[in-house]
Amino acid sequence: MDIRVYLAGEIHSNWRSEIVDACSSPHLPISFMSPVSDHALADGIGTDILGDETDAFWKDHKSAKINAIRIRTMIEKADVVVAKFGEDYRQWNTALDVGYAVAKGKPIVVLHPSSLGHPLKEVDAAAMAVAETPEQVVKILQHVAIKQDGIDS
Amino acid sequence: MDIRVYLAGEIHSNWRSEIVDACSSPHLPISFMSPVSDHALADGIGTDILGDETDAFWKDHKSAKINAIRIRTMIEKADVVVAKFGEDYRQWNTALDVGYAVAKGKPIVVLHPSSLGHPLKEVDAAAMAVAETPEQVVKILQHVAIKQDGIDS
Amino acid sequence: MDIRVYLAGEIHSNWRSEIVDACSSPHLPISFMSPVSDHALADGIGTDILGDETDAFWKDHKSAKINAIRIRTMIEKADVVVAKFGEDYRQWNTALDVGYAVAKGKPIVVLHPSSLGHPLKEVDAAAMAVAETPEQVVKILQHVAIKQDGIDS
Amino acid sequence: MDIRVYLAGEIHSNWRSEIVDACSSPHLPISFMSPVSDHALADGIGTDILGDETDAFWKDHKSAKINAIRIRTMIEKADVVVAKFGEDYRQWNTALDVGYAVAKGKPIVVLHPSSLGHPLKEVDAAAMAVAETPEQVVKILQHVAIKQDGIDS
Amino acid sequence: MDIRVYLAGEIHSNWRSEIVDACSSPHLPISFMSPVSDHALADGIGTDILGDETDAFWKDHKSAKINAIRIRTMIEKADVVVAKFGEDYRQWNTALDVGYAVAKGKPIVVLHPSSLGHPLKEVDAAAMAVAETPEQVVKILQHVAIKQDGIDS
Amino acid sequence: MDIRVYLAGEIHSNWRSEIVDACSSPHLPISFMSPVSDHALADGIGTDILGDETDAFWKDHKSAKINAIRIRTMIEKADVVVAKFGEDYRQWNTALDVGYAVAKGKPIVVLHPSSLGHPLKEVDAAAMAVAETPEQVVKILQHVAIKQDGIDS
Amino acid sequence: MDIRVYLAGEIHSNWRSEIVDACSSPHLPISFMSPVSDHALADGIGTDILGDETDAFWKDHKSAKINAIRIRTMIEKADVVVAKFGEDYRQWNTALDVGYAVAKGKPIVVLHPSSLGHPLKEVDAAAMAVAETPEQVVKILQHVAIKQDGIDS
Amino acid sequence: MDIRVYLAGEIHSNWRSEIVDACSSPHLPISFMSPVSDHALADGIGTDILGDETDAFWKDHKSAKINAIRIRTMIEKADVVVAKFGEDYRQWNTALDVGYAVAKGKPIVVLHPSSLGHPLKEVDAAAMAVAETPEQVVKILQHVAIKQDGIDS
Repeated sequence: MDIRVYLAGEIHSNWRSEIVDACSSPHLPISFMSPVSDHALADGIGTDILGDETDAFWKDHKSAKINAIRIRTMIEKADVVVAKFGEDYRQWNTALDVGYAVAKGKPIVVLHPSSLGHPLKEVDAAAMAVAETPEQVVKILQHVAIKQDGIDS
Repeated sequence: MDIRVYLAGEIHSNWRSEIVDACSSPHLPISFMSPVSDHALADGIGTDILGDETDAFWKDHKSAKINAIRIRTMIEKADVVVAKFGEDYRQWNTALDVGYAVAKGKPIVVLHPSSLGHPLKEVDAAAMAVAETPEQVVKILQHVAIKQDGIDS
Repeated sequence: MDIRVYLAGEIHSNWRSEIVDACSSPHLPISFMSPVSDHALADGIGTDILGDETDAFWKDHKSAKINAIRIRTMIEKADVVVAKFGEDYRQWNTALDVGYAVAKGKPIVVLHPSSLGHPLKEVDAAAMAVAETPEQVVKILQHVAIKQDGIDS
Repeated sequence: MDIRVYLAGEIHSNWRSEIVDACSSPHLPISFMSPVSDHALADGIGTDILGDETDAFWKDHKSAKINAIRIRTMIEKADVVVAKFGEDYRQWNTALDVGYAVAKGKPIVVLHPSSLGHPLKEVDAAAMAVAETPEQVVKILQHVAIKQDGIDS
Repeated sequence: MDIRVYLAGEIHSNWRSEIVDACSSPHLPISFMSPVSDHALADGIGTDILGDETDAFWKDHKSAKINAIRIRTMIEKADVVVAKFGEDYRQWNTALDVGYAVAKGKPIVVLHPSSLGHPLKEVDAAAMAVAETPEQVVKILQHVAIKQDGIDS
Repeated sequence: MDIRVYLAGEIHSNWRSEIVDACSSPHLPISFMSPVSDHALADGIGTDILGDETDAFWKDHKSAKINAIRIRTMIEKADVVVAKFGEDYRQWNTALDVGYAVAKGKPIVVLHPSSLGHPLKEVDAAAMAVAETPEQVVKILQHVAIKQDGIDS
Repeated sequence: MDIRVYLAGEIHSNWRSEIVDACSSPHLPISFMSPVSDHALADGIGTDILGDETDAFWKDHKSAKINAIRIRTMIEKADVVVAKFGEDYRQWNTALDVGYAVAKGKPIVVLHPSSLGHPLKEVDAAAMAVAETPEQVVKILQHVAIKQDGIDS
Repeated sequence: MDIRVYLAGEIHSNWRSEIVDACSSPHLPISFMSPVSDHALADGIGTDILGDETDAFWKDHKSAKINAIRIRTMIEKADVVVAKFGEDYRQWNTALDVGYAVAKGKPIVVLHPSSLGHPLKEVDAAAMAVAETPEQVVKILQHVAIKQDGIDS
């Protein structure tokens, strides 16, 4: 069984590559998908491609929708969604992704410092696991994806 | 056609009753649902009913899950979801509700001050309308629900 | 069994009230839903409620999305969708509604003059019946909804 | 992640091959599907295979249904649907395809000259992006499908 | 809990009214739906309403599709589908209805003489109960719908 | 909002009527559904109605399927499923009902003595709340269903 | 696009291999699935594997259910279902398969002699094409699956 | 057609490898998935990865949820679910898996000694086959997956 994982949320640290690298063992049939992590590129993609807007709302709107094509397609294809929340920024988009994924029946692993436990209680309650480090996420994905000799094929 | 509306989000102002009162005309077949808006009650409901916890995480967890029974049931029954975001608090639960509702195919009306446009761009991009005042939400709901003489029955 | 019918399409003739009036017999448990048929109201609803736009594209966009809240909610609630096409205007919105309704598993009755048969062949092929007059639509709805003595209850 | 794109609409220009050629880079895991673009073949396929009809309606009907087997199967398999509208012809079938794809949860990119903005406002409101040139569509698909080093696998 | 039952199949005997009459007790919240049981009316409805056809295939086609609007709508609304097969006629439409209902997750009660057990084995295998008399069907529906004092409300 | 609750599981104690009675306040719009709780009746219903079997397996099979018509229909109609496990009997049918309800997206409240926590850990992990007494279940249902003055309508 | 086709119905002629052979061109990405076509094997599979039954009903039941595992799994995986009806036998299982496939949104091609048009009118009305020969079915599948140079990839 | 089989239930005997080995013929396109069968590992995985708990309930909870990520993902990917029940332990998790799989439309093969027929009657009634030995399960899977010369491709 190949497991496809979508890595939602924070794009200001290298948590994604930590997880991807740790799962790159050939015995772990896991592949990863993620939003475009170049913040400036993602934020400006709408007007970069489709032409400028005078109103900031529509500039944001065009970019958010093009990014949403990628994000929703990836969530639909994912078997598991990992969502990272940090201390900075509002990150409403990450909570939006979690809500979307939950309604689509995708199991969620949330990754955040324990200090965010109270404001994230509804997100955590919708998740199958709440981790504090990328290493914990890696171990969870290994448990989900590992093939057992003579049993899985 | 009866329209059922779920009012998600902020419980620190009276925006819900403003909308409910304005839509109470007998010609408008709209009914409203909402989360339990008594903040202390909702936050403590888990341990109040099911017994105390030493760990704050599990206390929050039990409350969030009981509240989620109400919230998800109401979103499932809703025809339209209105979601209010304000300047204060993280409100990740509201973005979670929007994501859930979008994936269930529910049309969303978002209500927030224009100053929050950039951090809410993904939420707004998932919505059918973005309002700044409860009065605007009322007018949208009226347009959706109004019966026209000789045409609707 | 109550049958709910959504009347999609042309808002420049009185075809809807012809059908609604003819089905108003107490023995026919049929109710009707329709888009807002006041063309100027529907076209301007976005900026009327949510504020003006300098770009015509966004003006249209805001109105089309508010109208879509009504239209999609009604199609979801409908048991049968009747879609009227005429000689004038492009009416891409009506074909959009038919495609949406077909994918949701709703049976479609199309109403158009026979002269439009060739350009509407894909729409007709997606329908359960193709009528040329409102009277024919009425008879079809009667056949679908009629209660038979001693058999239906 | 492999992205499958269905190219709906106009068959009288070479817009499809422009997009397909521009996305043929080995780094872009995009594949394309399309309706049968030989107009005479598609229009006559019903009677060519299944025998002639005296009534033009049934001739059209048989062809439209065989073409629909292909079109609906491809939309079901697609991750993204691109729909092209031009100045000529009624193109109700393209709007039908868009409505069908929207209800199936497929993200839509619409491609049309800006002059068609008003009559296509409901179609555009159902889309994730509205482009005016095939080049813009190509850039959107690149943004959706691109693999990022060390992050996507 | 109100139980809605669709009575599919044979229209040449009075099995439907036997079941409906026996379930008319006020303590049994069961309502019944059925196809149009006037054979000539149902067979000719297409051309009666929409105009004659020279080819018998299209005459049958138009009638079958109008009847299907009624039948599919009723199966969608039904909680339970009862399907009657007899010795006469091919009754492929009844097996079609059963297949449709099974795929929609509706529980099926099949009613047929035991002599038809072998040719109906796939239909019976898709059912929750196989009855030989209308009285047995009545007892099954009573067991499904009965309210128990102090337990059901 | 009316809340429909299905009460699954143990039929050897009066836990159902305790919950139903406590929720009979006119301010609580809750209705209850349950399996047939007369054990002998439910166990023998298959052969009682449809004729005897020599093989105990088929006797059980016929009864279990008729009971399943009732149970699955009720779970489909339920907003919330309450499942009671006790010390006695294997109660695989109750765990089966929970699994079915979870996959249908129904929120689950499990009711069992704390001594059963370890063997029921997978069932509890699939639930939104784990109660030890009917009184706790009542309070949870009240929190889910209560109407708030001026907010819910 | 790979097209998977399920070949339902009659197992007493070689119509399946005629279609499979004609579609074996490397340019046609079509694969075929079918029920077990050895009639004696399929009819006896239940008791052959699971032990004998004294009652013919249960013997048939066990076989029909094991065959149904194969048939339903294949219909779920199919893009197109071809269903063959002939003059002999009741073939209720084939109509059952068609009903199941229609409800799952699969396009149907029916294959039968024109003499069966009237009794199969409801089946034909649920289909996208009605063929009389395997050659016609082959041509339809070719039209659905063919890749066009420079357009499909 | 590749058939994916999820092997649910008992982890205290080698029934899984018996089935996997017997199906390893290259002519049988069957692959197998299973829960983590190392009992101590699966039971402790939650606290091993995410940190200890003082309350046994939460320790079990964290493990059960991580295991559920694997189990539900595998059931979603499975074409057929085989569920083994034995004389020992409560095995509520296995019945939970069966209920979940049934609601997802997966065909079930149950494997248990005949002595468990009565308490498992509801589980058996939800299944497509009830086997007593792994050899019988192997034969069923062979019947489902076998490719027939000249017919399947």
